[in-house]
Amino acid sequence: MKLDVVKVWQDLHKMPELGFQEVRTSAYIADVMEKLGYEVTRGFGGTTAVVCYKRGAEPGPTLMLRADMDALPYPNPDGSIECVHACGHDSHCAMLLTAAAELADKVKRGTLKILFQPGEETLKGAVALVDKGILDDVDIALGMHIRPIQDVPAGDMCAAVRHTSSTFIGINIKGRTSHASRPHLGVNCAEAAALITNAVSMIKIDPAVVWSAKVTGIVAQAAAHNIIPDEAQVWLDCRAGTNEAMNEIIEKVKAAAEFGAKSVGATAEVFFPGVVLPAAVYDDDLTAEVAEEIVKAVGKEHLAKDCGGGGEDFHFFKFKKPSIKAAYFGVGVGAAPGLHARNMSFDPQYLPNGVKVLVGMALRKVG
Amino acid sequence: MKLDVVKVWQDLHKMPELGFQEVRTSAYIADVMEKLGYEVTRGFGGTTAVVCYKRGAEPGPTLMLRADMDALPYPNPDGSIECVHACGHDSHCAMLLTAAAELADKVKRGTLKILFQPGEETLKGAVALVDKGILDDVDIALGMHIRPIQDVPAGDMCAAVRHTSSTFIGINIKGRTSHASRPHLGVNCAEAAALITNAVSMIKIDPAVVWSAKVTGIVAQAAAHNIIPDEAQVWLDCRAGTNEAMNEIIEKVKAAAEFGAKSVGATAEVFFPGVVLPAAVYDDDLTAEVAEEIVKAVGKEHLAKDCGGGGEDFHFFKFKKPSIKAAYFGVGVGAAPGLHARNMSFDPQYLPNGVKVLVGMALRKVG
Repeated sequence: MKLDVVKVWQDLHKMPELGFQEVRTSAYIADVMEKLGYEVTRGFGGTTAVVCYKRGAEPGPTLMLRADMDALPYPNPDGSIECVHACGHDSHCAMLLTAAAELADKVKRGTLKILFQPGEETLKGAVALVDKGILDDVDIALGMHIRPIQDVPAGDMCAAVRHTSSTFIGINIKGRTSHASRPHLGVNCAEAAALITNAVSMIKIDPAVVWSAKVTGIVAQAAAHNIIPDEAQVWLDCRAGTNEAMNEIIEKVKAAAEFGAKSVGATAEVFFPGVVLPAAVYDDDLTAEVAEEIVKAVGKEHLAKDCGGGGEDFHFFKFKKPSIKAAYFGVGVGAAPGLHARNMSFDPQYLPNGVKVLVGMALRKVG
Repeated sequence: MKLDVVKVWQDLHKMPELGFQEVRTSAYIADVMEKLGYEVTRGFGGTTAVVCYKRGAEPGPTLMLRADMDALPYPNPDGSIECVHACGHDSHCAMLLTAAAELADKVKRGTLKILFQPGEETLKGAVALVDKGILDDVDIALGMHIRPIQDVPAGDMCAAVRHTSSTFIGINIKGRTSHASRPHLGVNCAEAAALITNAVSMIKIDPAVVWSAKVTGIVAQAAAHNIIPDEAQVWLDCRAGTNEAMNEIIEKVKAAAEFGAKSVGATAEVFFPGVVLPAAVYDDDLTAEVAEEIVKAVGKEHLAKDCGGGGEDFHFFKFKKPSIKAAYFGVGVGAAPGLHARNMSFDPQYLPNGVKVLVGMALRKVG
């Protein structure tokens, strides 16, 4: 059975669903995979994940191909939420389903594992599956993403999307209120917030690493302007090209918060409102093989240079099980104006390119 | 006709009214003043002000004795507002009415002008009257205030309450938004706010002057933590013992805002959400005479040293017409826990002390 990737994408594009609510999408996918003769687990780990296997007769590694399924929420003027596939996860599922169709009778060695993952946009999808053992049998993990026109020209592909580690950090500052005519009796949290912002701005990380750490929010306010504020919150957005650099940023932010606050008699508590998303850590040899498959698929002149930016919860796989070899390629489809733009669109004629790389990589490992 | 200051205070205490809404209070006062034979103008300048005259046969200066009439608003749990005489303005009116009664037949020289002023707590009462010509005929202005127990012991009086100049300053900062993964494309208003806060914290004014300039509020926030905020607001509370020092603070805050913002590519606009309240500027000779009257009234051992702090819109009189000689004394009545505390109370047995000083000063100038 052969699938038309554009047709599959058109089907999936009509059923955008939020993370962990991919009910129609996962049912569609599981139905197709069963028809293709895969061993299919629906609702893996109590989520909407679809996990499929095709096992070879000869021994070999387990290669996991992964696509994400969820769409994004956008508010309408009437307050309702419209769900839109503005990050192209529908195209990822379409490429992976189409590759699965081609691979259905070609797995000779080891195991082909195919994962349709929920909730990537929530950054909680991959972790939820890891906690349920999704990685237990995995040796190699391969993911992909369509790229915006700014990153990779339409028709080109890149062998590695070098996502950065990223996290929000919150800082709760506590001081002591006083009337503004007696500032010496108070501990001014607006000033503590400024000092912490200064200290954060002075953090130094090896300039050879891609990184940034910025205060993106300060709220320090009492009930009136003539009251010294005894509370403040500071928020940061931090990004780093390596997990080591992210760890260093976090430690330095903690010091900036603690000692910046203490320097004026305040206290600061650092918290993480969400996850610390790991950076991309790829296997160079595996990435070189992906590059070879890209050249085979679209020609050397369409092998784009690696792109970066943004985050992906795919990287929790390598982060949680470091022995895995991981790679993740980018498919140039002319996505514009940008991923996550509500009106994001792209040219699906380039999706077969991604299918070819998935198939080629699978044949290398389990064919 | 003789008045009992405590009885008058009890009457006025039962009719607390907000600034510029002192309808019952001003009617009560005007009725009494007319009975005392004063020339009375109700509703001076379109406000609730009551302006009264007693003119002497011989030439002499115009002495204006002034009391404020308004009470303060406090929210109830049900959202309604309770009006409370928590700053003792009722006692000021009672002292001035009682003094007026004693002075009714004693004005020989010049003119005794008695002003019951609306809206002191709004800081707009004095200015509103100045704009309508209240000062045109005034040579000397004398005011008074009951003092909290911390400032002046009950039964004591001080010859000068050295109110400071004070103002709020707001700063609107404009930058440029960007995604937090591209911080170099944005102009981060949280950082501009921190820099302005730093610069404000480094302002230096002659340490011999009472002064302070503090950022008491920062709000710098975008719609999400991964967006560089392109707007921020910073609020300051500034106080100074002299108007010259306040002018210097304001100029330095403007520089801190403008150049602190510019240093990271942002712009800052300084605004004044309210008035710049002038500092107390007293005539030393007049204050010395007040001190003599205090000694006459309560004895040398009950002449307290000058107290300070807080603001008074009385000082717009001298500020707007610098040729006026001004003085302003404090009456120790054991007010606790503090002025503006909703449950503020004091011992009215000490109010006759204030009446004696008002009468004594009037007799010196127009008796």
